[in-house]
Amino acid sequence: VKLTTRYRFAASHRLVSGALSPAENARLYGKCNYPYGHGHDYIVDVTVEGPRDGSGQIVNREALNRWVEERVIAKLDHRNLNSDVAELGGKVTTTENLAFAIEKMLATGWPHAARLAGVKISETARNTFELETK
Amino acid sequence: VKLTTRYRFAASHRLVSGALSPAENARLYGKCNYPYGHGHDYIVDVTVEGPRDGSGQIVNREALNRWVEERVIAKLDHRNLNSDVAELGGKVTTTENLAFAIEKMLATGWPHAARLAGVKISETARNTFELETK
Amino acid sequence: VKLTTRYRFAASHRLVSGALSPAENARLYGKCNYPYGHGHDYIVDVTVEGPRDGSGQIVNREALNRWVEERVIAKLDHRNLNSDVAELGGKVTTTENLAFAIEKMLATGWPHAARLAGVKISETARNTFELETK
Amino acid sequence: VKLTTRYRFAASHRLVSGALSPAENARLYGKCNYPYGHGHDYIVDVTVEGPRDGSGQIVNREALNRWVEERVIAKLDHRNLNSDVAELGGKVTTTENLAFAIEKMLATGWPHAARLAGVKISETARNTFELETK
Amino acid sequence: VKLTTRYRFAASHRLVSGALSPAENARLYGKCNYPYGHGHDYIVDVTVEGPRDGSGQIVNREALNRWVEERVIAKLDHRNLNSDVAELGGKVTTTENLAFAIEKMLATGWPHAARLAGVKISETARNTFELETK
Amino acid sequence: VKLTTRYRFAASHRLVSGALSPAENARLYGKCNYPYGHGHDYIVDVTVEGPRDGSGQIVNREALNRWVEERVIAKLDHRNLNSDVAELGGKVTTTENLAFAIEKMLATGWPHAARLAGVKISETARNTFELETK
Repeated sequence: VKLTTRYRFAASHRLVSGALSPAENARLYGKCNYPYGHGHDYIVDVTVEGPRDGSGQIVNREALNRWVEERVIAKLDHRNLNSDVAELGGKVTTTENLAFAIEKMLATGWPHAARLAGVKISETARNTFELETK
Repeated sequence: VKLTTRYRFAASHRLVSGALSPAENARLYGKCNYPYGHGHDYIVDVTVEGPRDGSGQIVNREALNRWVEERVIAKLDHRNLNSDVAELGGKVTTTENLAFAIEKMLATGWPHAARLAGVKISETARNTFELETK
Repeated sequence: VKLTTRYRFAASHRLVSGALSPAENARLYGKCNYPYGHGHDYIVDVTVEGPRDGSGQIVNREALNRWVEERVIAKLDHRNLNSDVAELGGKVTTTENLAFAIEKMLATGWPHAARLAGVKISETARNTFELETK
Repeated sequence: VKLTTRYRFAASHRLVSGALSPAENARLYGKCNYPYGHGHDYIVDVTVEGPRDGSGQIVNREALNRWVEERVIAKLDHRNLNSDVAELGGKVTTTENLAFAIEKMLATGWPHAARLAGVKISETARNTFELETK
Repeated sequence: VKLTTRYRFAASHRLVSGALSPAENARLYGKCNYPYGHGHDYIVDVTVEGPRDGSGQIVNREALNRWVEERVIAKLDHRNLNSDVAELGGKVTTTENLAFAIEKMLATGWPHAARLAGVKISETARNTFELETK
Repeated sequence: VKLTTRYRFAASHRLVSGALSPAENARLYGKCNYPYGHGHDYIVDVTVEGPRDGSGQIVNREALNRWVEERVIAKLDHRNLNSDVAELGGKVTTTENLAFAIEKMLATGWPHAARLAGVKISETARNTFELETK
């Protein structure tokens, strides 16, 4: 059985690659390359999977929430993804790269018996990025 | 009869008042004062009110959409509210101030027979700001 | 205190005025005038208002639901608004006209102590039409 | 300008009036009178209204959230409305009565400059109860 | 091709294990162990999978709805999961255990040509439990 | 990593099979066979899958949106699925058949490096049809 729990954070970012000229960045990233950046209310869906333990649960809800809050939300909420997030250093802050960064934040030192099964990041009520964890 | 139509834009901002010290700004605005800013997927609900015209409508949908896109969304989408928006110049970019700015953008030169009845701005799936137009 | 209850129906329609030429209809109603029509999943929010009765309620839920189902949903669900709905006969099937027709269906013979306070019709997850009942 | 902020709590309840016989209760309240009760994920929308203060806000978000959490959510979340809530003592736990109880919890000692403008309670993704505060 | 159809029910419950002391139950289940219980508006998403039959459908909608209403919703709606549901007898009423109970209610005597592919249960607009049927 | 992007269109249709008598059609399709048809606000979720390219994205958003708009939305939006859509010619316009038609519209000449991973069609806020692309 899988449990998916939803978290939210608000952040700003700008898509810009250091390997490209300003004109190339503008062409490649369009509005997402505007000089002063923009932002989103991101939704993070964390999925864990495992058998039911003696409590009839696959994971302790409070322990899972604490883990996600400390490892992910505390680092990203009300932050600028280009300037404030070590795990994205040197990376273009696309939601694809953000998904990988969040998965790594979650997986590093993962203390729960249930395994981390996947991460889903949504922005703009339209785009959702999904990462299945092997 | 009233018609409310929904629009969306993504923007970044930072709450900071030039009249206050850094410590006062941090105390007053909390996370919203973090130095590099954050952002939201804003929702704008525009309400117009009037009698039905000969077409059985209170306003032409395309004409209304064009007006909101040109006057509001084109100025705010993928922009930084502190740096990019003339109408917010010198103002703290709270959603309250943003609501008044958007209402003014809409009302200036309003070309529709139906009157502008109100504007509602939502952010973070939790907070909604509503302005009734007199 | 006000109670708003949500209902849904699916219907097809086409915007076309008998008083206009095909070219004028096409110009006025755009995509909504395509010859074979289109459709929506309409949402109807019915609001009643009144004091609490002896049961601690302003209206009996089952009685209200039965009223709306019989008077509105049974006539509109899976129907074509141009061909199947007597109350819209001779009218362009704009959502404005539909809102007035639904309000009349509800108000005619209204049997509840709580008064009908308003009707809201939504379509396309974007447009909402609101009628306050005097 | 008005600000509406959304809160949530989960509670159980049973509709039963001490003034009625079991048969009358069953007829009046239907499924809501089943002997062991049922429950909902309630949504509470709190609306405050006022002018913008020096910070560009109508109310301090953290102070408002603290107020609602302490006065309302802490008393209702994961509770049984019939057994656990002093403010509902002797009342049938209809959502109408709950709305008045929540408004009183909020209004008693209200410490904000912005006035409490209204409370909206939703349950079952279908029914919403709205109380305008005078 | 897979079809997922959504159903809803409202129920109360309390997390408590007969194998544990009151203090252990309180520590393990937190707010969910409060003595008088709480409740949720549960969402059930039922997924069936199969080839299209002669009607161009993978399952008859009315037959599927009748099955889920009779086998699941009629047993759970407006009920207390601890007292009213035989299939949960002796089990802690976690949503994990509920998901397995619902899957068994659905699968027992399954009369449709399309196979039952999975069940998803959501509560509190935040947690979703998913069971893939083998 | 997978990206799912959401699109919408409004269309009318009627379920009717040329191989069946009127009475058989009525029995098989119920309300969906009413003579003048009905309609929906359809939601289309398109999923693509692939590795991140040099831009840190799996697909160019604008290119994907253009593809879906041209190949799918332009053909279906504000149209009648029985009369206007060549890809459904001779087919009963069930959402199952629509899902296969949309997948074929998308896949034919697919120009993106990321592969088309699946299509999901929703109607009536209740039913979702999912097609995994091999």
